[in-house]
Amino acid sequence: MKILITNDDGIQALGLITLYKHLVELGTVNVVAPERERSATGHGITMHKPLRVYEYPVGDTEKTGYAVSGTPADCVKLALEALLPEPPDIIISGINWGANLGTDVLYSGTVSAAIEGTINGIKSIAVSLDDRRKVPDFSIAAKFVAEFLKIYSKHDVPNDTLLNINIPDLPWNEIKGVKITKLGRRRYIDTVERRKDPRGREYFWLAGRVNDQDMDPNTDTYAVRENYISICPVHFDLTNYEAIEKIKAWNIIK
Amino acid sequence: MKILITNDDGIQALGLITLYKHLVELGTVNVVAPERERSATGHGITMHKPLRVYEYPVGDTEKTGYAVSGTPADCVKLALEALLPEPPDIIISGINWGANLGTDVLYSGTVSAAIEGTINGIKSIAVSLDDRRKVPDFSIAAKFVAEFLKIYSKHDVPNDTLLNINIPDLPWNEIKGVKITKLGRRRYIDTVERRKDPRGREYFWLAGRVNDQDMDPNTDTYAVRENYISICPVHFDLTNYEAIEKIKAWNIIK
Repeated sequence: MKILITNDDGIQALGLITLYKHLVELGTVNVVAPERERSATGHGITMHKPLRVYEYPVGDTEKTGYAVSGTPADCVKLALEALLPEPPDIIISGINWGANLGTDVLYSGTVSAAIEGTINGIKSIAVSLDDRRKVPDFSIAAKFVAEFLKIYSKHDVPNDTLLNINIPDLPWNEIKGVKITKLGRRRYIDTVERRKDPRGREYFWLAGRVNDQDMDPNTDTYAVRENYISICPVHFDLTNYEAIEKIKAWNIIK
Repeated sequence: MKILITNDDGIQALGLITLYKHLVELGTVNVVAPERERSATGHGITMHKPLRVYEYPVGDTEKTGYAVSGTPADCVKLALEALLPEPPDIIISGINWGANLGTDVLYSGTVSAAIEGTINGIKSIAVSLDDRRKVPDFSIAAKFVAEFLKIYSKHDVPNDTLLNINIPDLPWNEIKGVKITKLGRRRYIDTVERRKDPRGREYFWLAGRVNDQDMDPNTDTYAVRENYISICPVHFDLTNYEAIEKIKAWNIIK
């Protein structure tokens, strides 16, 4: 199995290094990741300036990956078009430090790398750790991903669909099981703070505490809150098909 | 009607100013837009640094808008949470200089502002001009939007759904009509260029020419190519519902 690992926490992130160590025995594993943390970049790509690429060690391993001066989606584009000798069988983005659940996947660099892979016809998975501890333990999540890949590789995934996996940062015996979910809704309260700088001028800071109201047990937000691993199939066709016929009935004529 | 205009080309962009001039007679129109061009930022939000906001004239009009040192999604968040005295009835993002069609909507700052509005429960529309001329003419598109809003405001739009409108940059009599569409697929060729800098060091540039193969006449890409105005209903539930049952059958057990 040829695996490409990327992320949005940057090539030095412990989540990426731990994932690499657990996947290396499954095949040929390459790493192409942002040179620094790129959280909440959304599905951004860098079009208006050049991208630098340099080789960088993957933690304390013998492996060298590529660090890219761009976003997670840039990393996937560069890996597929320029850096890898042949396309990977699978792209894994993560392990992100922090969950990527519900409507938040729209902002997620971790998920955007997996979307970019899927657009390019490569099976892709995004993996995130729902952080609950000061010092996260990525090894349980990484071990789960390695085991999951053995099952995954035996099945067909629907076309144009990535899997978004979220794993609670808990000891293995406290994780209740695995749920296949749909995306929930994340709601935030107090999302903007208004402050004054040292010169008395006003500025703003996007803040917001998660205030999940989602009580639908089939959602990813609910599953993770209840200490389950969530696996959610995500596609990128944003068309609301039901709405098409309704709007046709408006009879908009040029 | 209380209208909020934003965009991703920046508050000085002609597309935004022209739109403002055509909508101002429909009600109270406010402008909150990035201080500079933010194309291809995707659905990014700015979490790790403060945002500055300052008042800025809307072109040569008497109106003052707010310029924000952030992304289109930041603008919508700030407008709703801090800048506007009351929520708008509708958010219009645009008019973008350049089409936002098919899978490209994932990268589009213009569309991301409309998604952000929709997430916050405000009816939202993204408008883009498919540029074909060196000097774009936004006035035809702006006039169409003003007329369209009169029809739009009489109908219910499905929940959690924005409209993504793309208008060919053509004289009115060359536009063939209006199509309600689904998102097509945009394909690019030659997406990465490898170059050397003046010091002989390698760098990369994301390039790529559009190579639309989409021959499905119901897609937005096809409609605009055939000189129609495309109106596509877009939602943000990325769940692939059909895939859920299939993956449940894999029997992934913790």
